[in-house]
Amino acid sequence: MNNHTPHALKELLDARYGKGPQTLDSMNDTIDTLMQHRSVRAFTDQPLAPNTLELLIAAAQSASTSSNLQTWSVIAVEDPARKQRLSDLAGKQAFINSAPLFLVWIADLARMQSMGDKREKPYGSLDYLEMMLVATIDSALAAQNAAIAAESLGLGTVYIGAIRNNLEGVAKELGLPPRAFATFGMCVGHPDPAQLSAIKPRLPQASVLHKEQYNVGVHDQVVPGYNDTMDAFYEAQKMKPLGAWDLHSLNRVRGPEAMAGRDGMVAALNKLGFALK
Amino acid sequence: MNNHTPHALKELLDARYGKGPQTLDSMNDTIDTLMQHRSVRAFTDQPLAPNTLELLIAAAQSASTSSNLQTWSVIAVEDPARKQRLSDLAGKQAFINSAPLFLVWIADLARMQSMGDKREKPYGSLDYLEMMLVATIDSALAAQNAAIAAESLGLGTVYIGAIRNNLEGVAKELGLPPRAFATFGMCVGHPDPAQLSAIKPRLPQASVLHKEQYNVGVHDQVVPGYNDTMDAFYEAQKMKPLGAWDLHSLNRVRGPEAMAGRDGMVAALNKLGFALK
Repeated sequence: MNNHTPHALKELLDARYGKGPQTLDSMNDTIDTLMQHRSVRAFTDQPLAPNTLELLIAAAQSASTSSNLQTWSVIAVEDPARKQRLSDLAGKQAFINSAPLFLVWIADLARMQSMGDKREKPYGSLDYLEMMLVATIDSALAAQNAAIAAESLGLGTVYIGAIRNNLEGVAKELGLPPRAFATFGMCVGHPDPAQLSAIKPRLPQASVLHKEQYNVGVHDQVVPGYNDTMDAFYEAQKMKPLGAWDLHSLNRVRGPEAMAGRDGMVAALNKLGFALK
Repeated sequence: MNNHTPHALKELLDARYGKGPQTLDSMNDTIDTLMQHRSVRAFTDQPLAPNTLELLIAAAQSASTSSNLQTWSVIAVEDPARKQRLSDLAGKQAFINSAPLFLVWIADLARMQSMGDKREKPYGSLDYLEMMLVATIDSALAAQNAAIAAESLGLGTVYIGAIRNNLEGVAKELGLPPRAFATFGMCVGHPDPAQLSAIKPRLPQASVLHKEQYNVGVHDQVVPGYNDTMDAFYEAQKMKPLGAWDLHSLNRVRGPEAMAGRDGMVAALNKLGFALK
């Protein structure tokens, strides 16, 4: 079963980078699925087919994991009251409630601690920033596999970074043990076809792909053109213009007052059992 | 073009979780690609087809990115001498040299700083742990899309976490600007069919998938069985047994003496421009 509609690669590249003389080939269903991605924030009432969750998790567990330590978990939330409370904790994003499934991805060093306690072995590395990063990356690779599996089935997803606004509140709501924290949420459901967003343009490849060494000068060259691309995208989509992409983006990182609580992350993680040495 | 050989879902689930009454359906080419993943550490001499790199990066840029900030970059390394130096910096893993393409994925806040300097706008949030995590997660989602695209083309990949053993050395080798660091490397090439590894079993789903709240008691229940599964896997593969999975894993996290330099990550990141407030 493959519910998504395949597209020509040229069309997908034009959508991602703007119209141009695209010459890539080697297309297949998987690359088509990857390149058709767009975030979905409006879902129909249709429930997920039986066993969808288990299939998404099998895909997630098939992702690489550092040294096979598997330092991640995921909490599947379907209870409407809990979804509402998590939505409240994550910037009151109402579409979290409308998704039949809300996945909260967990950087999970608690399993290692539990194994160490059982075997009476030391686990001093868990107190270091490195192991927090390992668990965060493990959770991201797993989540991305689940997202792709979902999209290949015609489902829509959106990542919810705002789950980090209140790490302690989320940990309490989900009953997380020490040494576990939510890296991001993910809504999963059937996209409302009336509200399907378009493929969003990204920066030119030259801005993110560097050959042999980092090209420090590239950003000044490409950002003005990308501002124009994004302006045209919002206009074509009849969406509210956000202002130039660079200024809008800079406004988001202007300082702790714009971080919705995430400026307190070190203290929150310390309380959740991450020493971050 | 789709060079990988499709398999029955039952067969893939058995490989991942051990033989059992698997009932999942809804298979398609993309899920088949995801579930067939195994790390590849032996490559043939065959070069990559033209434009493969650009196709992988188009897939990577199609992944979600927090607030469309696109806080990642990737350095494509093909020069044999540079691959050798990076291999030396990353635990002397010789197979890095044998891969035609070595990608180093970058958590990149330098672009935001460059934009802020150009526009004379503040970017105080870049000094917080949160934004380092955003960039790390962005790089992981992008990399996983590239890995999946590569595997859909019949190529093999392996993540190289050891690129974090010496963050400053890697940054110097790649000419990274301040506020950029390597989150992991990735070898890409044609798998040597004579040395193709098997699909590695993972923990039972009950260990990573929690319903509504975290099930703290599950780990004691499932870890002994997974130790047995992994023992049987290594025996069937005629690979050197590593000892019980939990003990082997605990040995890897026993303390800073086992971290190959990554216990110095906070100091290294500080030097690379990450304040981690």
